[in-house]
Amino acid sequence: MASIDLNADLGEGFGAWQLGDDDAMLEIVTSANVACGFHAGDPAGLLRVCRSAAERGVRIGAQVGYHDLSGFGRRFIDVDPEDLLAEVVYQIGALQAIAQAGGSTVSYVKPHGALYNTIVTHREQAAAVAAAVRMVDPALPVLGMTGSAFFEEAGRLGLRTVAEAFADRAYRPDGQLLSRREPGAVLADPTAIAERAVAMVATGAVTAVDGTPVPITVESLCVHGDSPGAVQIATAVRELLAASGAEIKAFC
Amino acid sequence: MASIDLNADLGEGFGAWQLGDDDAMLEIVTSANVACGFHAGDPAGLLRVCRSAAERGVRIGAQVGYHDLSGFGRRFIDVDPEDLLAEVVYQIGALQAIAQAGGSTVSYVKPHGALYNTIVTHREQAAAVAAAVRMVDPALPVLGMTGSAFFEEAGRLGLRTVAEAFADRAYRPDGQLLSRREPGAVLADPTAIAERAVAMVATGAVTAVDGTPVPITVESLCVHGDSPGAVQIATAVRELLAASGAEIKAFC
Amino acid sequence: MASIDLNADLGEGFGAWQLGDDDAMLEIVTSANVACGFHAGDPAGLLRVCRSAAERGVRIGAQVGYHDLSGFGRRFIDVDPEDLLAEVVYQIGALQAIAQAGGSTVSYVKPHGALYNTIVTHREQAAAVAAAVRMVDPALPVLGMTGSAFFEEAGRLGLRTVAEAFADRAYRPDGQLLSRREPGAVLADPTAIAERAVAMVATGAVTAVDGTPVPITVESLCVHGDSPGAVQIATAVRELLAASGAEIKAFC
Amino acid sequence: MASIDLNADLGEGFGAWQLGDDDAMLEIVTSANVACGFHAGDPAGLLRVCRSAAERGVRIGAQVGYHDLSGFGRRFIDVDPEDLLAEVVYQIGALQAIAQAGGSTVSYVKPHGALYNTIVTHREQAAAVAAAVRMVDPALPVLGMTGSAFFEEAGRLGLRTVAEAFADRAYRPDGQLLSRREPGAVLADPTAIAERAVAMVATGAVTAVDGTPVPITVESLCVHGDSPGAVQIATAVRELLAASGAEIKAFC
Repeated sequence: MASIDLNADLGEGFGAWQLGDDDAMLEIVTSANVACGFHAGDPAGLLRVCRSAAERGVRIGAQVGYHDLSGFGRRFIDVDPEDLLAEVVYQIGALQAIAQAGGSTVSYVKPHGALYNTIVTHREQAAAVAAAVRMVDPALPVLGMTGSAFFEEAGRLGLRTVAEAFADRAYRPDGQLLSRREPGAVLADPTAIAERAVAMVATGAVTAVDGTPVPITVESLCVHGDSPGAVQIATAVRELLAASGAEIKAFC
Repeated sequence: MASIDLNADLGEGFGAWQLGDDDAMLEIVTSANVACGFHAGDPAGLLRVCRSAAERGVRIGAQVGYHDLSGFGRRFIDVDPEDLLAEVVYQIGALQAIAQAGGSTVSYVKPHGALYNTIVTHREQAAAVAAAVRMVDPALPVLGMTGSAFFEEAGRLGLRTVAEAFADRAYRPDGQLLSRREPGAVLADPTAIAERAVAMVATGAVTAVDGTPVPITVESLCVHGDSPGAVQIATAVRELLAASGAEIKAFC
Repeated sequence: MASIDLNADLGEGFGAWQLGDDDAMLEIVTSANVACGFHAGDPAGLLRVCRSAAERGVRIGAQVGYHDLSGFGRRFIDVDPEDLLAEVVYQIGALQAIAQAGGSTVSYVKPHGALYNTIVTHREQAAAVAAAVRMVDPALPVLGMTGSAFFEEAGRLGLRTVAEAFADRAYRPDGQLLSRREPGAVLADPTAIAERAVAMVATGAVTAVDGTPVPITVESLCVHGDSPGAVQIATAVRELLAASGAEIKAFC
Repeated sequence: MASIDLNADLGEGFGAWQLGDDDAMLEIVTSANVACGFHAGDPAGLLRVCRSAAERGVRIGAQVGYHDLSGFGRRFIDVDPEDLLAEVVYQIGALQAIAQAGGSTVSYVKPHGALYNTIVTHREQAAAVAAAVRMVDPALPVLGMTGSAFFEEAGRLGLRTVAEAFADRAYRPDGQLLSRREPGAVLADPTAIAERAVAMVATGAVTAVDGTPVPITVESLCVHGDSPGAVQIATAVRELLAASGAEIKAFC
């Protein structure tokens, strides 16, 4: 069975506010998508999670997002692509310095929330994010959805694209995620999610909502860190993957 | 006559708001203290000024400040030193990536506004800023006041300290600046300021408010870019320095 | 000739940053759309402009916008209508207290920038803004575009709608504004704009870009305060209107 | 036994971030100090907590603070008193509109965090906060510390001052709170805190750290809502007060 990376969004507290259990998640994942201060994350909190990740040998990725604390980066903003480019450069650079101060480095970039979803199809914003990553370091891989405008633009610029899949989300027959607004879009049962993860990694396919098998590319599995039961689900996924013979390790 | 660096605060617009005439100032100074987004400066604006500085061969410094847009970093904030350390690391890293995207690098660090003034005497905050610079890059010089707690802490950590002087400010007999609240604290006449600048560079001394000559260390002269007549004053300073035989070049 | 209101966006500085010449514009307009702190405007600056407006007898309107300082409220944000409703209530209330402290009251509400444009067609956001105004005070008129979803929703809730026109913008044959991206969308010549304003008020019609006359409803004319030459244009509009016999006074 | 008010800080989430259990606390307290968006609280969340308070008949107070989300209002900011005045006016007005939209009104003002502590002694900031309250509504009482500069300034302006006490904090012999940095400054045992609350209300005195009884004025008891065990402690306080015959009701 193939090796697989597990990634989760971390460092998403802000000031007095906590979100999720970063230390618990760092025991499970191999890649930590660390917020960069625009949708979440204050510098001191980011430094703490980078130190924890460094101590455990978990890779750090820059989770870049829209500049929208009150919306947690979950709302589309019609930002000018030139502004977005500079914002992504800024965020990656900020986290690079924080990661280095914490004893590690930024190993990849993963867009967050509404930005992630938008650049599946929004060509100008996708191109801006890809260009920003390349400006900072053309050797930085990007994590995202296969078939997205973002991956096309990133590929065109010579960036390595790392395809991720979601064990806790329903898929459409065309390989895209079912919208969260549809019933059954998000799975909640740890065992079911873990079995789905193993099937994804073992077969390179997922069963869509209409029952048909859909081939998917999966170099990294995203597990969530901020929902109730998140740690339990992530643990179940990791344990069943390990029991199934998958090697769990960072993609890079 | 010795060589001298001219520095000014630039990149201090934000979104729709402009401040000062960055392009005009970049024709005059040899070192640009570029804001880092915490007291002023949005990423796209920072990228523009870094590109302009790179094109003109002007050195870029990270002008780190308190996280206080509405106060423009001009108000003391009793921030925890650990938080401040991470905030300074974050700001330098952000500007490093922006500067690189603009075709240059960050060559030094200069604290801004209330942070600059605070760490003349506030030991814990001074130590935090110095430690932050060292974490990012121990080869980065810091610009500031001779005799400050900041310079002591920076020196203790092995950072190069670069002393600056202010040709448009009145000095006390002890070599410190007269408070802006005192009458006569800020000079406004371009010719008087330019002559004062030349005297500082030529003699290594300044005439204090009581008429006594005070020795000062000056590797860099700060000229202001955001006041009315700023460009005119800075031009007068540069021209008289040049006419006096001083070599105007970046300190590093 | 009918009476006409002149409105302009004011109070749009923030902290150290100025925008436009509020005092000059307050000598010209009869209604001041004062920012509320979400896209621009800090409390002390808002209090200053409200005091100036009160001294001159200029009416104050709450210029509510998206929560987006770095974008100056000029970018669409896909904010949840429930959140938007609360944000509009919050902004109006804040300005009500500031206006009262300045010796006046809030007499109307005008959405700003991207929010203004969005709720011409975006039904849910339009309904949220209208509902917010009604919650605060059902007697508050709203300023906006005739034929907009916003005016339909406001009318349905019993709010008074006050139609505004733009003397410096080109109109399409259907009575809508030509997009700013089209050539010739924004007029710059003070005389031409002033003559257009007079024609609008005198005839209740405007000449569209294709030369056809288009009937428009105009209770208030918007003049801009933040562009180069803004004060000159606004002065020309006011003077020619007055010379043409129009009574220039607030709509309420 | 006298009647007593119970107050707690509520509405302190922001966007995706929660803090404390507002609904549980609203079952216990008679006065809710609702954040106003400057140190915590987004408009939609404030509207929710105001609606819940209105439904339960709990009084709403405006909990005004420094403009410092990342510091949660817990850090002194050397803000200009004129700016602070306008900021407090703005915050109260914003919450007034939100409270009204939620079916209630703002019945009092209580400063938060570092602002609360600062204006015990900082005369200029104390005067600014008092003047702001009076500008908005001279009939609004203020909640705070007896003997503070804030109460002196408020009293001078004719505002009603409502003295609060802290059942979970150690007192010095002079009637002031022992600094949180001192050992034993914060009590954690629900029974001990409840007994202390009853003693305070019944006797008008508290036992200081050195064992001496100190007379205190207490019209309102502050219980905390955001610490671990907060709900349990507040419940214990309320139940023991009720069992002791105290009438628990809002002060106004």
